[in-house]
Amino acid sequence: MSDPTATQTQIAFLRRLRAVREFLPDPVPAAAIADLLAVARWTGTATNRQHWELVLVEDRETPRTLSGLEGYAAHLAGAPLGIVLVMAGKSAEQETFDEGRLAERIMLAAEAHHLGSCIGWLRGAGQEKAKHLLGIPSERLVRTLLSIGYPDEVARRARPLNPDARKPTEAFVHRERYA
Amino acid sequence: MSDPTATQTQIAFLRRLRAVREFLPDPVPAAAIADLLAVARWTGTATNRQHWELVLVEDRETPRTLSGLEGYAAHLAGAPLGIVLVMAGKSAEQETFDEGRLAERIMLAAEAHHLGSCIGWLRGAGQEKAKHLLGIPSERLVRTLLSIGYPDEVARRARPLNPDARKPTEAFVHRERYA
Repeated sequence: MSDPTATQTQIAFLRRLRAVREFLPDPVPAAAIADLLAVARWTGTATNRQHWELVLVEDRETPRTLSGLEGYAAHLAGAPLGIVLVMAGKSAEQETFDEGRLAERIMLAAEAHHLGSCIGWLRGAGQEKAKHLLGIPSERLVRTLLSIGYPDEVARRARPLNPDARKPTEAFVHRERYA
Repeated sequence: MSDPTATQTQIAFLRRLRAVREFLPDPVPAAAIADLLAVARWTGTATNRQHWELVLVEDRETPRTLSGLEGYAAHLAGAPLGIVLVMAGKSAEQETFDEGRLAERIMLAAEAHHLGSCIGWLRGAGQEKAKHLLGIPSERLVRTLLSIGYPDEVARRARPLNPDARKPTEAFVHRERYA
């Protein structure tokens, strides 16, 4: 029943996801997009509310415009595919948590297709402008923009890398009690 | 370079994650816990803040007490391992989003080990009581409790299942514009 190799392959897959901000111009294949959507579709939500929708943007002008809005989405300008997460706008706490789950799943599905991805984040007026630009009703919450595309490894290697930019495990794990 | 079989294995793995609420009493092996923590450690956070810590609870009394607090965490009573997510409590929006990412990754790492998992959620006084019980400083945010253990398939099959309880893809995907 248990297959240690399969388990370790999955764990390695989960561990290796990293943000990619530099993309090649190649389009994201339709089959990969279909898989991203299938994985997104099955992401769990609080009490199975599925309180989100997605807007896929591939027309170059749109990601470029979104990338300049208030927030942190500059990487979207060079991404062949942008995915805009549209949350219902009814329950900030649960929707924000589920938005994080959804973003993580889509990024992992992209990784499975050797596609890089990065989370963009709109703030203040940037959120309202994005809704206006995309025809999204004003009561919705539009905050997360995912950039997706094949990694530009040359541009990526040109950036300085921190080889182990995470706290050691013992710095964040407590057993039975915090203190 | 590209391996279609590996890609489809990863996509299927991502798609099959489901919440499990009924567990066998068997403990979670230390090697599996180590992998869960390794995957958790590499979960991305906004501007790499890593603003979270974990409390692992295996002593049976603690999950049982947590399961009775205000919120939705009844499934924790029967879980051999509980993981309490402790967020810094400084930036609700980003921390809640990152909390969702972290929960999703830990659940997927559990799935890789054939372990089931479920998200529990504390509300109101439940959050304060959990902090008191576990010795967590009061300024932190303690909301998400993960139940983890081997699935009790007999109990699971006894529950009615909705075979396709998700919206069809075309109900949540828009191309280029929402409307």
